[in-house]
Amino acid sequence: MPHDFKITRLVEFSDTDMAGIVHFTAFFRYMEQAEHAFYRSLGMSVIMQDGDRQVSFPRVHASCDYTRPLRFEDEIEIHLIVREKKAKTFAYEFVFRKLASRGVPAPVPCEEVARGRLIVVCVTKDKTTGTMKSLEIPAEIAARVSQAPPDYCTRTSPEKA
Amino acid sequence: MPHDFKITRLVEFSDTDMAGIVHFTAFFRYMEQAEHAFYRSLGMSVIMQDGDRQVSFPRVHASCDYTRPLRFEDEIEIHLIVREKKAKTFAYEFVFRKLASRGVPAPVPCEEVARGRLIVVCVTKDKTTGTMKSLEIPAEIAARVSQAPPDYCTRTSPEKA
Amino acid sequence: MPHDFKITRLVEFSDTDMAGIVHFTAFFRYMEQAEHAFYRSLGMSVIMQDGDRQVSFPRVHASCDYTRPLRFEDEIEIHLIVREKKAKTFAYEFVFRKLASRGVPAPVPCEEVARGRLIVVCVTKDKTTGTMKSLEIPAEIAARVSQAPPDYCTRTSPEKA
Amino acid sequence: MPHDFKITRLVEFSDTDMAGIVHFTAFFRYMEQAEHAFYRSLGMSVIMQDGDRQVSFPRVHASCDYTRPLRFEDEIEIHLIVREKKAKTFAYEFVFRKLASRGVPAPVPCEEVARGRLIVVCVTKDKTTGTMKSLEIPAEIAARVSQAPPDYCTRTSPEKA
Repeated sequence: MPHDFKITRLVEFSDTDMAGIVHFTAFFRYMEQAEHAFYRSLGMSVIMQDGDRQVSFPRVHASCDYTRPLRFEDEIEIHLIVREKKAKTFAYEFVFRKLASRGVPAPVPCEEVARGRLIVVCVTKDKTTGTMKSLEIPAEIAARVSQAPPDYCTRTSPEKA
Repeated sequence: MPHDFKITRLVEFSDTDMAGIVHFTAFFRYMEQAEHAFYRSLGMSVIMQDGDRQVSFPRVHASCDYTRPLRFEDEIEIHLIVREKKAKTFAYEFVFRKLASRGVPAPVPCEEVARGRLIVVCVTKDKTTGTMKSLEIPAEIAARVSQAPPDYCTRTSPEKA
Repeated sequence: MPHDFKITRLVEFSDTDMAGIVHFTAFFRYMEQAEHAFYRSLGMSVIMQDGDRQVSFPRVHASCDYTRPLRFEDEIEIHLIVREKKAKTFAYEFVFRKLASRGVPAPVPCEEVARGRLIVVCVTKDKTTGTMKSLEIPAEIAARVSQAPPDYCTRTSPEKA
Repeated sequence: MPHDFKITRLVEFSDTDMAGIVHFTAFFRYMEQAEHAFYRSLGMSVIMQDGDRQVSFPRVHASCDYTRPLRFEDEIEIHLIVREKKAKTFAYEFVFRKLASRGVPAPVPCEEVARGRLIVVCVTKDKTTGTMKSLEIPAEIAARVSQAPPDYCTRTSPEKA
């Protein structure tokens, strides 16, 4: 039962703004990509079937703290950590590190550039009214995700290795 | 029965890229905004009900020719012209003009900065299979939209006034 | 010296996702639009000149709490409140309210759908190295913005009016 | 001297809209990603240095014809073909094929879902005025890119194989 997951990706031109850096909203798309890749790594999708109900995971909270700017063609690692697993919600933390700039590897241990958080709630859509209603995370899904130990990442972060 | 429509809007920061200008994909969002505002001006929405069927208008073609760059806080006019009205499709042309830059009005007649085109097809979604199927534009919708005269805009463009 | 500002806008089709609601990242673009419109209302721009230096305001923090979903063609109000004014940073709160859905006004007092926060820091770019360096908010800018009273919005929110 | 290039990518949730399919503007971002990956494959970047001038490649034309919709977690191939190489411009064609849907491979030969085109012009920015001026593609860049034979892709397309 994994409690973390990593993806890497390249900053794209359309992620930048006229200040020459990655627009702050792009970090939230990066978090979502890491989250969805995490579900796929578990054999699931963010749009999941629970019997005859379709369940999905809209956000009730999203936040990001930015330490350093990212630029076009930076290669970054997005490290997802499951911080909380409750009956109806998951809380994910995301640590962003810069691995390389235009093909030139960054000094090791890699610098942390941002840290974000998503809280997602399990919902199903009422077939008649179309309104969304929260529900307990189906057992089959909950069984595949575990909460990270409280000191996780502090302990295993490359910066501290 | 109108055959054209105009909106104005301000270029937003998130529309720009690291080259300091509006990203080329933003013009396609601008076109779509003008198209949807056009439907609203006719008392309709892009998601329309035709009896018990929901019809919508996905794109089969989109294009844009760019003459001059746009920048943050430019005020632009997007002029939609109905170029073709067929049984199942509408073809729209869009003329982009810069009206002002950061509050300073542009010289009149206003410079054309880009010209785009969308061809949209009327479809309905099969309730069982979920696949989209083209159909004739419902009469109630077709009755509200007319095709522009062939020489339209050449004749009425501010540049030629 | 204003400490708050309001804009209204319509949810666009490209703001929605396959769940049929506004994608959570769009709220951050809406916040930025309100912030930039606030600067314009004060006769400024987010890209400002301070003598021969160009100063700008990148984000060090962004967050949003979501209460209810927004949908295509919802009309929303974004209410910016200046929560903190420090030597180098501004902290803004944003209250999102739904004013109307597809032309049908929402019941008054209007429902709050989300609440967000941006902390922005004043920086200038070193002309030689290109790196960004924080600095005190220029006096001319600081003089135009004031911090809201601690109980602001609680007191003046339409919900409590 | 290559005249074509391929990338594959997964459709992301934020690429979809409320119609349940990929928003038409996303195809233009996909084209740009393929173009930039093409430059990287040649040891270049879209922001290139030519002596002491920085040259870049803004678009003068962008278009796309859509045959079939794409959906969340579709795996697609974007096939870039150099259709024209002139003194100041490159014209690229892009063929989109669906390789798999949510992990299930598509039948071979893979269905073409869209076909697009970008014409990009080589420019440099005047350091004093900031205006962009077209120029001949630097020899070092031009030497690495070749025009595809006229019948290319017709001949080699998987559909015809």
